[in-house]
Amino acid sequence: MAYNLLKGKKGIIFGALDEKSIAWRTALRCHEESAQLVLTNAPVALRMGEINKLAEEVKAPVIGADVTSMEDLKKLFEESMKHFGGGIDFVLHSIGMSLNVRKGKSYTEIDYEWNKKTLDISAMSLHRVLRTAWDMDALNEGASVVALTYIAAQRVFPDYNEMADAKALLESVARSFGYNYGMKKKVRVNTVSQSPTRTTAGSGVKGFDGFITYAEKMSPLGNASADECADYCVTLFSDLTKMVTMQNLFHDGGFSSIGVTEAVINQMEK
Amino acid sequence: MAYNLLKGKKGIIFGALDEKSIAWRTALRCHEESAQLVLTNAPVALRMGEINKLAEEVKAPVIGADVTSMEDLKKLFEESMKHFGGGIDFVLHSIGMSLNVRKGKSYTEIDYEWNKKTLDISAMSLHRVLRTAWDMDALNEGASVVALTYIAAQRVFPDYNEMADAKALLESVARSFGYNYGMKKKVRVNTVSQSPTRTTAGSGVKGFDGFITYAEKMSPLGNASADECADYCVTLFSDLTKMVTMQNLFHDGGFSSIGVTEAVINQMEK
Amino acid sequence: MAYNLLKGKKGIIFGALDEKSIAWRTALRCHEESAQLVLTNAPVALRMGEINKLAEEVKAPVIGADVTSMEDLKKLFEESMKHFGGGIDFVLHSIGMSLNVRKGKSYTEIDYEWNKKTLDISAMSLHRVLRTAWDMDALNEGASVVALTYIAAQRVFPDYNEMADAKALLESVARSFGYNYGMKKKVRVNTVSQSPTRTTAGSGVKGFDGFITYAEKMSPLGNASADECADYCVTLFSDLTKMVTMQNLFHDGGFSSIGVTEAVINQMEK
Amino acid sequence: MAYNLLKGKKGIIFGALDEKSIAWRTALRCHEESAQLVLTNAPVALRMGEINKLAEEVKAPVIGADVTSMEDLKKLFEESMKHFGGGIDFVLHSIGMSLNVRKGKSYTEIDYEWNKKTLDISAMSLHRVLRTAWDMDALNEGASVVALTYIAAQRVFPDYNEMADAKALLESVARSFGYNYGMKKKVRVNTVSQSPTRTTAGSGVKGFDGFITYAEKMSPLGNASADECADYCVTLFSDLTKMVTMQNLFHDGGFSSIGVTEAVINQMEK
Repeated sequence: MAYNLLKGKKGIIFGALDEKSIAWRTALRCHEESAQLVLTNAPVALRMGEINKLAEEVKAPVIGADVTSMEDLKKLFEESMKHFGGGIDFVLHSIGMSLNVRKGKSYTEIDYEWNKKTLDISAMSLHRVLRTAWDMDALNEGASVVALTYIAAQRVFPDYNEMADAKALLESVARSFGYNYGMKKKVRVNTVSQSPTRTTAGSGVKGFDGFITYAEKMSPLGNASADECADYCVTLFSDLTKMVTMQNLFHDGGFSSIGVTEAVINQMEK
Repeated sequence: MAYNLLKGKKGIIFGALDEKSIAWRTALRCHEESAQLVLTNAPVALRMGEINKLAEEVKAPVIGADVTSMEDLKKLFEESMKHFGGGIDFVLHSIGMSLNVRKGKSYTEIDYEWNKKTLDISAMSLHRVLRTAWDMDALNEGASVVALTYIAAQRVFPDYNEMADAKALLESVARSFGYNYGMKKKVRVNTVSQSPTRTTAGSGVKGFDGFITYAEKMSPLGNASADECADYCVTLFSDLTKMVTMQNLFHDGGFSSIGVTEAVINQMEK
Repeated sequence: MAYNLLKGKKGIIFGALDEKSIAWRTALRCHEESAQLVLTNAPVALRMGEINKLAEEVKAPVIGADVTSMEDLKKLFEESMKHFGGGIDFVLHSIGMSLNVRKGKSYTEIDYEWNKKTLDISAMSLHRVLRTAWDMDALNEGASVVALTYIAAQRVFPDYNEMADAKALLESVARSFGYNYGMKKKVRVNTVSQSPTRTTAGSGVKGFDGFITYAEKMSPLGNASADECADYCVTLFSDLTKMVTMQNLFHDGGFSSIGVTEAVINQMEK
Repeated sequence: MAYNLLKGKKGIIFGALDEKSIAWRTALRCHEESAQLVLTNAPVALRMGEINKLAEEVKAPVIGADVTSMEDLKKLFEESMKHFGGGIDFVLHSIGMSLNVRKGKSYTEIDYEWNKKTLDISAMSLHRVLRTAWDMDALNEGASVVALTYIAAQRVFPDYNEMADAKALLESVARSFGYNYGMKKKVRVNTVSQSPTRTTAGSGVKGFDGFITYAEKMSPLGNASADECADYCVTLFSDLTKMVTMQNLFHDGGFSSIGVTEAVINQMEK
């Protein structure tokens, strides 16, 4: 069902890799809710070509941008504003990458140069995006920025590795920049802390099956899906949440407020 | 602007006292979003008669109920289900009362019998409401329950007095019952922690002007209004937030994530 | 090993039932650290007689007090001050009782009259104790008050039932009264959120074995014992922690900061 | 007063710049409590020469180490173990540096290369220290590691700038490594979130006077001093806190649990 919740709104979606991506599902839902979109991803991800299917579906241009390049980001915002004929109303930041995770380095043996890349791509990129918009005055009054995160920023999930630290940094950047942009132009910046989701990116994490099952058993409503996350993001981009800012919002079927469930206790007794 | 977000949904609104009430504003917004409503309040509050204006506007019956009476609550749900011809999709709990605050007792000199009433009316009433619904199986699958709270549950605001403790208890009840009702029927239960709001109830608190000004200066987006809170509640009652449960959600213009603002620092230097 | 950490200090210990009790172990450790003590418990608990063994060991008088009776509490403080020849330096509040838990009522079917008792005995008793001391000016400058609590105040553990709500209320009272007593006399009030502990009281909780095992597997250092909790309380009563107040301090081997451990993941895969 | 709390223990203290430093005060207190120490700081800081006074007083060698150099850290641990004739029992990490703050760049205009240095020196250095110890098996069973942090990691203090993000990252590293080292050798890793303190480093922050005054008025016990922080660290290094790990511990006179105080309200009304 669609409600025209984003009618007249223009947004940039970072990070739609393939049809399992939360960013992909969110782009679809924003389109259904009558938003106009620009899609963007790293040049290397664009080369996969999948995103063109999405672009067609949501009638959006695809503009490549390396989020660690201020030049690329500037170009992205310039072209987006040109395309929209005006400022931006919402941004989805769904970006994360860890070479240490990919290469199977454990947390106690991470490569520090790779770690710098992880922090830059996965967390400081939010600063870079917001700062580019800030310098160009690209966001409209009351615009809404959402970055996706994970509860590993608060509690340890061993296999999540250095991405936990990156997410903690990301959430702090959201608060810090959220203060500045809120004061200046009533822009709100929030993070959505989503259930573990079977995306192509997520599945790469070692032990992923174990913890997605655990999370399912620990969530009274079960794990939230990518589509449900997209629905939630739509509410945060809409005008109905104009006073919510600098928050980390759990979209997780209740997981974050659970100490233990009967299902897990039963499993323990096996 | 209205979106038909609550089309086909049926809800009960507790606590609309007069047109400044958050519950009142929420009832109006739910009606605009095509929900059907039942209004309820304590018999003593109903005697003021104001609520009838609202009832007319939103085409809803008014059913009195003392939230500390299981009998009254049962009657309320029975009549509501009869009126709707079926189950309930959402509930707003906007209920708080402290005789100690009213009578000007400070926190260190509260009357313990009055305190019991405060806890019963302001916090355990949420348990009573949910339990009544539970026993009657009155809530539909995936129904949404929102209770209004205040950040005094986490941090001390001296003049908020024993209501701080009541709100901490309320938030715990929301989590505890949220687990049970989530497991049983995917019902979600959340609390919305709202900016201080110039309602008739709020204004009764000693030192209210001081802290509403302070909160305004400490919130990058300013204090959230009752109308904005109503908008937010609408999103939580809608189908777009089906996986959000057992959360305490700050609707406060950023206040909860602020350590200090320049505006307050400047005031300190005076 | 003893350090004379509490030399010259006078304290009241609530809640030593038998030698497994955290309060019992804390009394022993405080005595080793050269504190002078008064022991107290509810008249019904004293009738067991066990506490006399402890009293002998730590050379302390036993003064019965029903914590819901302001009269009893007044008498307790009067006699304690008389015994010590002066004011009180520390208080341990280790008190909890739930008839609903004892009688096997589940959270969705609690008896509300019993619930009132639970809240009064387990949470508001801290207010009553502090308020009695406040009215009599019984606590010395910089005195330290510790109340034992459990993480169920933040996250749901189904079998912990209404005690979760009671602990949330208790922690709020600690903050609220902590503000007042801190301003007045630099008294600090904290809660210690302890691992599940095999005390006589704890063992009564349904499903206790399941969750103590789970907590053990979820804590990098394992569950904290009653003796270790006693050690920790000693540091909080000492002069080395004079600026720690209004905090909820987890003494839990790391449990509260864990999302999941490998041990639990492995168990999930069985 | 001294208690011999750290008798037989060996520790490394990072970050004693001059006699106002928290690390300096902590070194003095650890020495009074009978610990043996090694002092370390960045070569550039050592050149000031002040630290030699401290070294003499606490009878400790000074070993320079750039915390971003794995080679330096390895040398530091090797020489320390040689000096002690065995493993390390505790470590104090009191390290922070931001070129962006020093050069007066606001948060929205930070230099990203400097930011990388800030994160590396102020946060990832804790990972580097722990990883060096891990690889060399330099920490004894049950050793205690404390890193100093600030509440800007949770709430925005505008002038704290990018150091807020660095502290959020630091606290996450403490949790993440704390899990690993806790599992392996019962090592505990905690952060102490200290009141703003008039150290030479702290005073460099713009608007520091404003927020230290504000913090004082917002803390029921006032701001905690460097000496009081030293006392608290002693308890965390001692055997009395063996089950406390992965925690962020506020040592702040109650600031973190305050919404507002009467003193601040009064100031608002001026």
